[in-house]
Amino acid sequence: MTYCLAISVNKGLIFASDSRTNAGVDYVTTYSKMHSFVWPGERVCVLLTAGNLATSQAVVNNIKTGLAAQGSGMNLRKGKYLHEVAHYVGQLSQAEQREHADALQKSGNSSAEASFILGGQIAGLAPEIYLIYPQGNYISASPETPFLQIGENKYGKPILDRIITPATSLEDAARCALVSLESTIRSNISVGPPLELAIHTINELHEPVRMKLTLNSPMYKSLQKQWNEGLRDAFSRLPRFDWE
Amino acid sequence: MTYCLAISVNKGLIFASDSRTNAGVDYVTTYSKMHSFVWPGERVCVLLTAGNLATSQAVVNNIKTGLAAQGSGMNLRKGKYLHEVAHYVGQLSQAEQREHADALQKSGNSSAEASFILGGQIAGLAPEIYLIYPQGNYISASPETPFLQIGENKYGKPILDRIITPATSLEDAARCALVSLESTIRSNISVGPPLELAIHTINELHEPVRMKLTLNSPMYKSLQKQWNEGLRDAFSRLPRFDWE
Repeated sequence: MTYCLAISVNKGLIFASDSRTNAGVDYVTTYSKMHSFVWPGERVCVLLTAGNLATSQAVVNNIKTGLAAQGSGMNLRKGKYLHEVAHYVGQLSQAEQREHADALQKSGNSSAEASFILGGQIAGLAPEIYLIYPQGNYISASPETPFLQIGENKYGKPILDRIITPATSLEDAARCALVSLESTIRSNISVGPPLELAIHTINELHEPVRMKLTLNSPMYKSLQKQWNEGLRDAFSRLPRFDWE
Repeated sequence: MTYCLAISVNKGLIFASDSRTNAGVDYVTTYSKMHSFVWPGERVCVLLTAGNLATSQAVVNNIKTGLAAQGSGMNLRKGKYLHEVAHYVGQLSQAEQREHADALQKSGNSSAEASFILGGQIAGLAPEIYLIYPQGNYISASPETPFLQIGENKYGKPILDRIITPATSLEDAARCALVSLESTIRSNISVGPPLELAIHTINELHEPVRMKLTLNSPMYKSLQKQWNEGLRDAFSRLPRFDWE
């Protein structure tokens, strides 16, 4: 399993992901699920991946192959709008899934499906984030729905629902993403560290600020401890029943 | 959808449920999902239901029919141990599902599956809670896993994971159940009020304390407001990044 999310606020974009993958419960491994593609001054793209690891790795490889190719075909750098790039990623994903679908079905193995979040900014345009479904279609965030999630999204959604608005600062959005990941890690063993975080400030078209947090990183330990204490404190101040 | 949960602590049991049911998005109704069966001094049983409403209603009706019948068959009052009662409820559920499975499949309609939480206490025995799967088998809570959930369980699980231990007071467990329901209602439109709460104090073999909370109930409004403020306060006190 996996949990990745992206948040779009007025000041820019936040991307966050866990790093645990598993095939069954006896093959648990660590892979980064965050990939950035940056042409300074021109465009910034960040891709988050969930689902079948073979599919998501193949999509990333094919994005890189596409960028290296000299032909006239579409690639990550050519899309004029970010939704064209999202469409392209959806096509790569569908092509990869089609190639292996029959074999997977015959062997009774799990699905080849993968989901993606693509976000970033193209010079002259606003920052955007897209969720690309396994079927290759995609949706963007909006002011009313300023975040997108893939993978194990439910445990970490309540805090996002409560805190995130377009006016939220980049740092608060990043903290909220970490809290959302921390709640998910606590409730689902198949989501795990290290956590990766990328912060894209609006109109700064260079490599986003990247952080990798392990369970022992001072920032993560401190956030985890203070959030736990803060929640317990909030809980202890809830109203009493009549008879108490 | 539905969200019901039960918590087993040293001092007794907490049961909580929402009341929204829906068949598609255009037939949304309100039904109680909490049913209590009490023989003072002898036994207390509380049943929470999730899943197909026809199945869960039929199971409750068949429990009542079984209690009214004079024969030698099993009924809710006869099980010597609560796990025997859980087994009986599982059998009623399976029988009901079998009767309609073919017809439902033929019409392409949704599943007849239903899940139940059965909890309570039989005189001379400890209080217990059981989760009864749609397949009729069941599990109990334990000191390490002191709560059970059915229906839309993920949004409301993190706070339970964080707060509930066997030493938690009955009132704190009840508050935690309400917070868990409130988070779920906020994130999933198919879970809705009124909320029902039942509190069984250990060895008090009479009707549990029952509360029904609407969105306008002073207790619920106050809990919702204070929890929201407490979370925001906790969030505002999280550690800053190096560059802030």
